[in-house]
Amino acid sequence: MLILRKIAEVRQWVQEKKKQGLRVGLVPTMGYLHEGHLSLVRAARQENDLVVMSIFVNPLQFGPREDFATYPRDLARDADLAERAGVDMIFAPEGEEMYPYYPQDTTVQVARLAEGLCGVSRPGHFTGVATVVTKLFMIVLPERAYFGQKDYQQFLVIKRMAADLNMPIEVRMVPIKREADGLAMSSRNTYLSAEERRQAVCLVAALRLCKERFEQGENNSERLIKAMTARINREPAAQIDYIKICDADTLEEMSRIDRPVVVALAVYIGKTRLIDNMLLNTDVMKNV
Amino acid sequence: MLILRKIAEVRQWVQEKKKQGLRVGLVPTMGYLHEGHLSLVRAARQENDLVVMSIFVNPLQFGPREDFATYPRDLARDADLAERAGVDMIFAPEGEEMYPYYPQDTTVQVARLAEGLCGVSRPGHFTGVATVVTKLFMIVLPERAYFGQKDYQQFLVIKRMAADLNMPIEVRMVPIKREADGLAMSSRNTYLSAEERRQAVCLVAALRLCKERFEQGENNSERLIKAMTARINREPAAQIDYIKICDADTLEEMSRIDRPVVVALAVYIGKTRLIDNMLLNTDVMKNV
Repeated sequence: MLILRKIAEVRQWVQEKKKQGLRVGLVPTMGYLHEGHLSLVRAARQENDLVVMSIFVNPLQFGPREDFATYPRDLARDADLAERAGVDMIFAPEGEEMYPYYPQDTTVQVARLAEGLCGVSRPGHFTGVATVVTKLFMIVLPERAYFGQKDYQQFLVIKRMAADLNMPIEVRMVPIKREADGLAMSSRNTYLSAEERRQAVCLVAALRLCKERFEQGENNSERLIKAMTARINREPAAQIDYIKICDADTLEEMSRIDRPVVVALAVYIGKTRLIDNMLLNTDVMKNV
Repeated sequence: MLILRKIAEVRQWVQEKKKQGLRVGLVPTMGYLHEGHLSLVRAARQENDLVVMSIFVNPLQFGPREDFATYPRDLARDADLAERAGVDMIFAPEGEEMYPYYPQDTTVQVARLAEGLCGVSRPGHFTGVATVVTKLFMIVLPERAYFGQKDYQQFLVIKRMAADLNMPIEVRMVPIKREADGLAMSSRNTYLSAEERRQAVCLVAALRLCKERFEQGENNSERLIKAMTARINREPAAQIDYIKICDADTLEEMSRIDRPVVVALAVYIGKTRLIDNMLLNTDVMKNV
């Protein structure tokens, strides 16, 4: 498995492979890999001849008081995991390679989809994501790119962006991977103390409670959110950022579940902000 | 010469040509071709195996009180001129093909370069330009794209955008083409009455006056702009939007010419807004 640091090297590698008619799947990550990332690699392997993983902690998507500096990084460990999962090439650029001057003048902005949910408490976040993903798409020019359902709003934003800008790239979503107790896998889980880790299960517990009530016939969003709120507030370290029930395509808030929806939440456990979500009324539901 | 209307057809055509190892030059236009456009085609011919011209009057770059509805259109005439100049394929989409819903959610924004000059009187204009050019770049995936110096700020914005987003596309500028009396060629010149057309020469006359004074040793921007203002104000139909002397790379306003600059102006002649510019202190100067 190759590890490349320079954009020009990546372009050359990809160009040679494409001349041979090989199709490339891209898995963009910020590193510190877990089983969720590796499931993206496996999905990419199935549909492409080659898998490229980018590992880049993108400063443009972090707010000034967020965890850019402390975000966990371990390229040696990531390279080992990626190679065993079947990655052919890792693109791991330095900050100056991606942003010769910072912040760069050009940004890609997605209205509407980027405005609610995490867009409220993380202004500029999705512009940072859309911009860096565009850059990675332009550098690698993959046939397909893979994103995890855990960042469901991010997936929708990227999919919308690729369609609106006519990018010749298929944007694919892979279901959430969970720990044994149900906690959605995240590089940020490493921030949690043992006690916080125990309490963090309240996110998925609330989602499962919602699903259960919905399957019993409750479709009123306010009542479902009230039940989820009560479940999360049982944990002393938990502080809710948001709990929303939204149209699964447009992210419009729904007062009643009468179409496929995403139940999405963001909760602080101590100082660590965690997100999770569940799709209701669709096949993906069974993944929770 | 082919005329294609659908994005999927264009992708297929380009893909086949690229498989044969042919390189594509793109000339994005809004149609109603004149010698300026044709000089872009000739530049593209010299550096590529195939030349694609897009013809699309992009609503996203027009303000609500601008001339989108009345912008001149004549595809039959354009096709004839393009074919004779050596265009291999025209992409002339309908509005709904480029914008299945309008306005689309995703935009490409370029800070700083897009803010001064025409960005002041045409808010949103360069976002519309950057967005549609990104779309055209993604549809055609050319090796090179060609823009006229007459829209100098546009050229800088597109070049910055392509660099910032790592687009694998070389952005090239071709010097201004002028009528016999010096008026910069523009599709909007057709709006002018005979009397306005006569007065419109004041734009290039002011630029030439500026060049002359500069070559005589005057490098104070205020005095140069004052002389240009006086020249333009001699024409009763002329109303100045702006006259600026800016760093030729950053478009920062310069109080003194001590580096390569662009002298840029926008002037209403009657109801028609015309622009023109001149580079000073560089080789391109001799094109005026």
